Amino acid sequence: MDFKVEKLKVNYKTLEEFKRFKEYGLQELSMLEDLEANIIDNDSESPFYGIYFGDTLVARMSLYKVDAKFNHYFEPPHDFLELWKLEVLPDYQGKGYGTALVDYAKGKNLPIRTNARMRSKEFWEKMGFTSVQYDMARDRGENPLFWFPETI
Amino acid sequence: MDFKVEKLKVNYKTLEEFKRFKEYGLQELSMLEDLEANIIDNDSESPFYGIYFGDTLVARMSLYKVDAKFNHYFEPPHDFLELWKLEVLPDYQGKGYGTALVDYAKGKNLPIRTNARMRSKEFWEKMGFTSVQYDMARDRGENPLFWFPETI
Repeated sequence: MDFKVEKLKVNYKTLEEFKRFKEYGLQELSMLEDLEANIIDNDSESPFYGIYFGDTLVARMSLYKVDAKFNHYFEPPHDFLELWKLEVLPDYQGKGYGTALVDYAKGKNLPIRTNARMRSKEFWEKMGFTSVQYDMARDRGENPLFWFPETI
Repeated sequence: MDFKVEKLKVNYKTLEEFKRFKEYGLQELSMLEDLEANIIDNDSESPFYGIYFGDTLVARMSLYKVDAKFNHYFEPPHDFLELWKLEVLPDYQGKGYGTALVDYAKGKNLPIRTNARMRSKEFWEKMGFTSVQYDMARDRGENPLFWFPETI
């Protein structure tokens, strides 16, 4: 099945839909406050991408490009994408939504870093992500996994 | 009730006990590999602190001192403690183990940063932790909370 991945705009409808996701947190609260205080406009750019089923947002992720100079992971340094809050609503899991989002991120042709829950490690390995050597000062309890495009 | 907080040593017994905690991850796997490969000695220092009930480790946390020069949170920069993997085994929750560990960390008299699950936000607020202004480039989906000692 083919899914349409969309870049999500910051508006009240999207922020309301975000509340259904378990990983709703300070990031979303901060977007809501900024919108209410007119610090950002309605329909501003967000770092979120999502997939709709009909009118319902059923899967989402956040993507952010990290500049090579902040790369403490590999040599020579290179820009990479940080991927977080990949989540599919319970009723829609196991149908390929998560894979579609990750594939979309891979299409940007940059290395991708994510911090995986151990329970989801199998999923990430299936997606071609591999662990880095743990470094306490850098990783502080995180479980960083990377994917690399072939051309780098 | 008074709990005895102990600095945990890296050994096979402790690493086996860590497996009961939900947040077992790359950090623990890496400690196990280092021990097996004799890269670290048995009973090496670990960043973990814990509380035993009889012979059983029932609560733990990790603490790591972050140098002021890596502080992107407040001005003027100041060393702070990063606290992660605070966890109490299910049968022992609600008895003050978590509070005892956090109080122990506070005793070091440095600001403390943690990345809170939204579900645990109430606990952290009760402990005197407060949110910082979310910054996407810095926080990337995390929910940073800080506690500050009175003397800073």
